[in-house]
Amino acid sequence: MTSKDDVSNLQASNAQNEMLARFFRAASDGDVGTIRRTSGLFNSVDIDERNSNSWSALMLASRNGHKETVDHLLNSGADSTLMNKSGQTARQIASFWNHDSVVATIDKFLSPKSKTRLEHVNYFGTNSADRQSYRRKDVEYVESLKCQKSTKYIVFSDLQLFRSNDNRRPSIRFLSYDQVKDILANANHDIIYIGNGCITGNDTAVESEASNTAYFAVNLKDINEEKFPSESLKGEFIGKGYAPTLMLLPKEEAGVVAQARSVLAWHDRYRFCPTCGTETNIAESGYKRICKDADCRSHQGVHNTCFPRIDPVAIVLVISSDGKKCLLGRQRRFPPRMYSCLAGFMEPGESIEDAARREVFEESGVKVGRLEYHSSQPWPFPGQLMIGLIGHAITDDIEVDQVELEDAKWFTKVEVAEALAAGFKRSEGLIVPPKHAIAHQLQKSWVQMSSNL
Amino acid sequence: MTSKDDVSNLQASNAQNEMLARFFRAASDGDVGTIRRTSGLFNSVDIDERNSNSWSALMLASRNGHKETVDHLLNSGADSTLMNKSGQTARQIASFWNHDSVVATIDKFLSPKSKTRLEHVNYFGTNSADRQSYRRKDVEYVESLKCQKSTKYIVFSDLQLFRSNDNRRPSIRFLSYDQVKDILANANHDIIYIGNGCITGNDTAVESEASNTAYFAVNLKDINEEKFPSESLKGEFIGKGYAPTLMLLPKEEAGVVAQARSVLAWHDRYRFCPTCGTETNIAESGYKRICKDADCRSHQGVHNTCFPRIDPVAIVLVISSDGKKCLLGRQRRFPPRMYSCLAGFMEPGESIEDAARREVFEESGVKVGRLEYHSSQPWPFPGQLMIGLIGHAITDDIEVDQVELEDAKWFTKVEVAEALAAGFKRSEGLIVPPKHAIAHQLQKSWVQMSSNL
Repeated sequence: MTSKDDVSNLQASNAQNEMLARFFRAASDGDVGTIRRTSGLFNSVDIDERNSNSWSALMLASRNGHKETVDHLLNSGADSTLMNKSGQTARQIASFWNHDSVVATIDKFLSPKSKTRLEHVNYFGTNSADRQSYRRKDVEYVESLKCQKSTKYIVFSDLQLFRSNDNRRPSIRFLSYDQVKDILANANHDIIYIGNGCITGNDTAVESEASNTAYFAVNLKDINEEKFPSESLKGEFIGKGYAPTLMLLPKEEAGVVAQARSVLAWHDRYRFCPTCGTETNIAESGYKRICKDADCRSHQGVHNTCFPRIDPVAIVLVISSDGKKCLLGRQRRFPPRMYSCLAGFMEPGESIEDAARREVFEESGVKVGRLEYHSSQPWPFPGQLMIGLIGHAITDDIEVDQVELEDAKWFTKVEVAEALAAGFKRSEGLIVPPKHAIAHQLQKSWVQMSSNL
Repeated sequence: MTSKDDVSNLQASNAQNEMLARFFRAASDGDVGTIRRTSGLFNSVDIDERNSNSWSALMLASRNGHKETVDHLLNSGADSTLMNKSGQTARQIASFWNHDSVVATIDKFLSPKSKTRLEHVNYFGTNSADRQSYRRKDVEYVESLKCQKSTKYIVFSDLQLFRSNDNRRPSIRFLSYDQVKDILANANHDIIYIGNGCITGNDTAVESEASNTAYFAVNLKDINEEKFPSESLKGEFIGKGYAPTLMLLPKEEAGVVAQARSVLAWHDRYRFCPTCGTETNIAESGYKRICKDADCRSHQGVHNTCFPRIDPVAIVLVISSDGKKCLLGRQRRFPPRMYSCLAGFMEPGESIEDAARREVFEESGVKVGRLEYHSSQPWPFPGQLMIGLIGHAITDDIEVDQVELEDAKWFTKVEVAEALAAGFKRSEGLIVPPKHAIAHQLQKSWVQMSSNL
């Protein structure tokens, strides 16, 4: 029995596959027009989609020396650091096939950024809003921003993001003051100021002249369709499985969502003064909570109870003592065959490096010596700071702590490179976290360390 | 008028100066015996003390090629990374004067450590206790540790450390179970498990065979001499100006004090559930607090209200665009002429690098591009994680934010090198924070980057 829904799902899936095939063919052929039509702002193909051989469009165009296509793809946001399952990037492929003009195009595209920002930037790490933290105490100024015509609201309900419900890639459904003012008057909510700027994701690219837009974020409570008419506001709240959905946002939007969700989650859980148990008031445009009891100790001394909380986590890719393998572990809740880097919350009185060593030793029995900082990532579930490190094992024997992990193993560079390229839908072999996770980026960095290949 | 106290202070100061002069003379002459008598475990000269020319004993011995003296000093904990005011380390001095055997001695001493731990370790960052975090839930086990004969207690009163009161360098005054059991029965207190191991500061070096001692830390409330006989317990609580005093501890003790003080400070301020305002119970050997209301939301979902809090801070040494100067600022509360690196609390939804750029720009108007991670440091006042970075300016014009800073300026390498070597007691010119602060270490790393000299 095939229901109507199944048929239309199948048709949609066929249409999507057809679109993808045309997209990859166009990249191979250097047909910029077709790429534009299949992958642009109003279409559904992700610019970084892979073909069955794990090649991206950028790799295909680079392979065949299509300089203009490469240029277009890069300007459309294609990720030049992706690798195929042999661990080659588009630049390496172009170089191998002697397409010097393509190599030069990729280098030219990378260089202006590199000069000002050399670090690895993770998903949730791009935030173009100017927080103007020094103006948060200026109530009059911030209140005046709230009702400006250009001001945009990012809306949550019980910490679930309101996103656009058209067929495009998921993105924030920004609302105007006129759209939210009655809602805010009738529903319980927390409201915070995000900053000023221009968040150029899908939704705002069309009006990029508005470079000084003020952004606010709101978390609504106990709403229903009457209080908040989702349909007529052309959006929907993402479901409870929020993390994967939030990882499909354009990266320019992901950073403000991380900021908004972390601060709103803090308001959601920290409504009372931890020092005396009295209720607290929201202050400083949403970046402070003040105890209502004027005699409370929280009004004095050096402490942190009034401010949003961030929990640092050390996450480590451990390389074996011979440099040939890396250590990955799996938690019971992971999908089958998925392994990831070892990680854990830092504790008071620890350096980042010692926290990393402790976690790896506790979970796997492996001792780590030298550690190098790789990159960091805000993680808004509810408010972690992931600190990514590459570690060098000084002992290789694994003894799995069955409480934290189900298994931990050494994997070769080939196994990890294949898993990175194959993605999440792989039918056999190792599966690694998606590229939005810092664990994926740590694994990729290791595979790309050519000295160890 | 000269009081009796003034006379005895003067005598003590003369005796100390005489001791120091003998110590430096011995280093120059290669007289290991005298060095032992003036600087050892039971004497008051700090092995890293500087003479009026900013040379340490290790530099003097290296200058004159005294290989055995250098070996003794290194084994006694002398810091081989110290620089004189020309920015030279002991190794560079030995190399300049062709004392190859001294150079080899220093290299040999450094190499075994380098293999396992290459990162820079800051003060408060050395903690040799094994936290055994996976055993914290095992109440029976932890209770059994509390009353063992070998178990040691680190005691605080209102978060002020109980230290030994003899004439040696300040150190933890560890107490035994027999010494604390009546006190704990009669005084309000929080108690936490630190870990097992051997903390080899001044106090415990003599009994280093006890390598599996259990350590607990206690914060007492509302005590007096009757409840807690300081004198007979041969110690005293450090005063309210705790930070400088805690920075005089042997570095092996500083790490556990950081751990203990951060967690106890958390218990001191987080006694009520921030989600519902009900009182909480201490659990998991002091690393969790659980809401007494069984219906509270804090018993469900992913959140952080039950666990100790750590606040990440980005601290940056910014180098000018020509590489010749560094940016330092001063807060109004600093001692006269003191300047330090710019720093600020990270905010939710920020990468470490973006937090560093935001803080520097907000405070000084300088824009920072590339950033490199340097090291991290736990800072237990009450529970920060300092994350140190070296930043590269892309604009050099300074516009000081008068709210956060009193002044910010570019300083030359010579100015900073002299200030690092001169220390805190300098009568003129720039003063920088002491070596226990990560700011000092960031400045030193910059001065030592020979490519920019």
